[in-house]
Amino acid sequence: MSKVTFKIIKRSNSSRARLGVLHTPHGDVQTPAFIFCGTKANVRGVTASQLHELGTQIILSNTYHTLLQPGIDVLREAGGLQKFTGWNGPMFTDSGGFQVFSLGYGGINAEIKGSRPYSGNKTLLSVTEEGATFRSYINGNKILLTPELAIQAQVAFGADLIVCLDVCTPHYVHKSFTSEAMLRSKRWALRCMTELKRLGSEKQALLAVIQGGIYEDLRRESADFANQHPFDGFAIGGSLGVTKQQMYDITQMVCEMIDPERSVHLLGIGGIPDIFNGVKYGIDTFDCVSPTRIARHGIALVKSNENPLETGNNMNLKRSSFAHDMTPIDLNCDCYTCKTVSKAYINHLLRAGETLGGQLITLHNIRFMNKLMEDIRDAIANDTLEACQADYC
Amino acid sequence: MSKVTFKIIKRSNSSRARLGVLHTPHGDVQTPAFIFCGTKANVRGVTASQLHELGTQIILSNTYHTLLQPGIDVLREAGGLQKFTGWNGPMFTDSGGFQVFSLGYGGINAEIKGSRPYSGNKTLLSVTEEGATFRSYINGNKILLTPELAIQAQVAFGADLIVCLDVCTPHYVHKSFTSEAMLRSKRWALRCMTELKRLGSEKQALLAVIQGGIYEDLRRESADFANQHPFDGFAIGGSLGVTKQQMYDITQMVCEMIDPERSVHLLGIGGIPDIFNGVKYGIDTFDCVSPTRIARHGIALVKSNENPLETGNNMNLKRSSFAHDMTPIDLNCDCYTCKTVSKAYINHLLRAGETLGGQLITLHNIRFMNKLMEDIRDAIANDTLEACQADYC
Repeated sequence: MSKVTFKIIKRSNSSRARLGVLHTPHGDVQTPAFIFCGTKANVRGVTASQLHELGTQIILSNTYHTLLQPGIDVLREAGGLQKFTGWNGPMFTDSGGFQVFSLGYGGINAEIKGSRPYSGNKTLLSVTEEGATFRSYINGNKILLTPELAIQAQVAFGADLIVCLDVCTPHYVHKSFTSEAMLRSKRWALRCMTELKRLGSEKQALLAVIQGGIYEDLRRESADFANQHPFDGFAIGGSLGVTKQQMYDITQMVCEMIDPERSVHLLGIGGIPDIFNGVKYGIDTFDCVSPTRIARHGIALVKSNENPLETGNNMNLKRSSFAHDMTPIDLNCDCYTCKTVSKAYINHLLRAGETLGGQLITLHNIRFMNKLMEDIRDAIANDTLEACQADYC
Repeated sequence: MSKVTFKIIKRSNSSRARLGVLHTPHGDVQTPAFIFCGTKANVRGVTASQLHELGTQIILSNTYHTLLQPGIDVLREAGGLQKFTGWNGPMFTDSGGFQVFSLGYGGINAEIKGSRPYSGNKTLLSVTEEGATFRSYINGNKILLTPELAIQAQVAFGADLIVCLDVCTPHYVHKSFTSEAMLRSKRWALRCMTELKRLGSEKQALLAVIQGGIYEDLRRESADFANQHPFDGFAIGGSLGVTKQQMYDITQMVCEMIDPERSVHLLGIGGIPDIFNGVKYGIDTFDCVSPTRIARHGIALVKSNENPLETGNNMNLKRSSFAHDMTPIDLNCDCYTCKTVSKAYINHLLRAGETLGGQLITLHNIRFMNKLMEDIRDAIANDTLEACQADYC
């Protein structure tokens, strides 16, 4: 029996949006929730106590990076990621598959997301039924990532929500390639489930990844398989097409295929309009590097109607027009940054090349995302999700 | 009348060490105190609230950098450095002279400190009786830094303790050059005093810089001048020789020359043994970039007897031997870093190139320096300064 449970509290009348609670040994996560990316066992520039102060519920660590450095042994000695990092709240780890395949294909995630064409293998050496062999970017060592190793690593890391190793495919491949990858992902998911049982670890919730790219029949086969096995939840992975509309259509389609009682995670998506649409399709959790990554590049997240110089939610604080702006990023925001300093100060830090500039925006963007999800949950409770979306987008 | 006052509470029986209080409009500073460097209007990687939590009393901002960016106008609009940065405690600004001359001489501070020979002017264009003309490293503009501008800038920045513009000389120059610089520094100091009066700013304490390099007669002339005029305190600047012993000798010599009732700042010195010796000569405040700079390079400050792998106070957390060390930097330290994470975690972050590693060490080093000064003050109160020094060094 997994100690992680998911309970749906309320379903919206007007969409598939739902309020839920992910109960974990490290605390509850109110859903819909946003999961911040702590790629290399840290959210860049932010301490665990700052994450807590900003109302953060849950953090993601990447198994791929953590496996290569500091490695399973160090994490076992530390007693898991929570003890190692000082973040004692709920944690999510991915399987490592996405990085092995996307970095292996020579890019980061652009190919799998569909925005850049396939450019040939770089660090991915071979994929067999046993697993995927790749070169470590740290020391060049060959590593065979099997479904069993992905589970062993995630159990050693001690996350609450863990993910089956899957075969990720880029967008620009033939359907047969995507189909074979989906079929192998099914077999690997069963091996993951077996390995988790063999390890006797009863804390983790295991998520099956729904693969199948842009193809309805493949997605359905993947969803049917996941529905028929006792996975604790689902993660939607693989190519979601090349346009926003395609991403929305595929997400909606998959959400309608899967067991509506289990939790659903949408891998790697975190744009504000994308989150609203995902929530309406029934997505419970999202993760994305974007809110914290753009912060380090000087971009603060704001409601679109509070962003007079730009369209959308991204406010570029490097603009010279902010050099004399003595108001905070958002007068209504309760984050440390907005309560303490002005856009002019952040603009100065960014232009001076001081990392504190990006750190202060990171604090704001984390708070912004947490507040966004709070507002979305309130809106589901009050059946005002459309108004909430209009307020933000 | 300056609103900043300095009161000596206790003098040591066994040395010139003293306990004091610098009362400022932004709060009291218990002395001896360490002043952390916030070069470009921020202590790198640390928020103002973190500085407060770590028991920080006072911060230094560099006039040279702040003058070039964001500039006086922005600081005036912001209402001063405290409002701009969110640090609402006591603040110290230097005059900008040290940077104009030391960067002008082609290095950073090595020449003036004596460790590197004079290598010819780089950005310093000319020095006349009026002031020093240099090129901005931001945009190449020519800037004439006069004693009046140095005071206007520091008043606009709103620091509590401000410093007269002086002519800094490197170590490797003829005595006559050092003598002329000292004489000009006297004339500039009077112009600074006049300008502060003219501006009608009554909040700031104005410190005279004691110049004269390694020459007793020049130091005495500089000290006599400062004693005879109503400066609120002194700062010891210029070359302190090339060896540690010379630095100690000159510091001691100058301390014995100056009015013992006024506060004394030792510019740019912050090694642990140097602080103990300085305190014994009668120094009240110190500043140095070292504790925060070395942190960003992976070096944590510890008591020497808690540093088994190295001599002195610097613990290099990048050492591979720390990769599996699950204990904190210092079990007895009450800083966030030591209460939350291990050396292994910091070692991982440093090796992964994550800025959080340096940030976590910065938090520790700030707490270490604040605790050091707390312990020094307790030791002066209890006449146990030698035992305290033996404990740390």
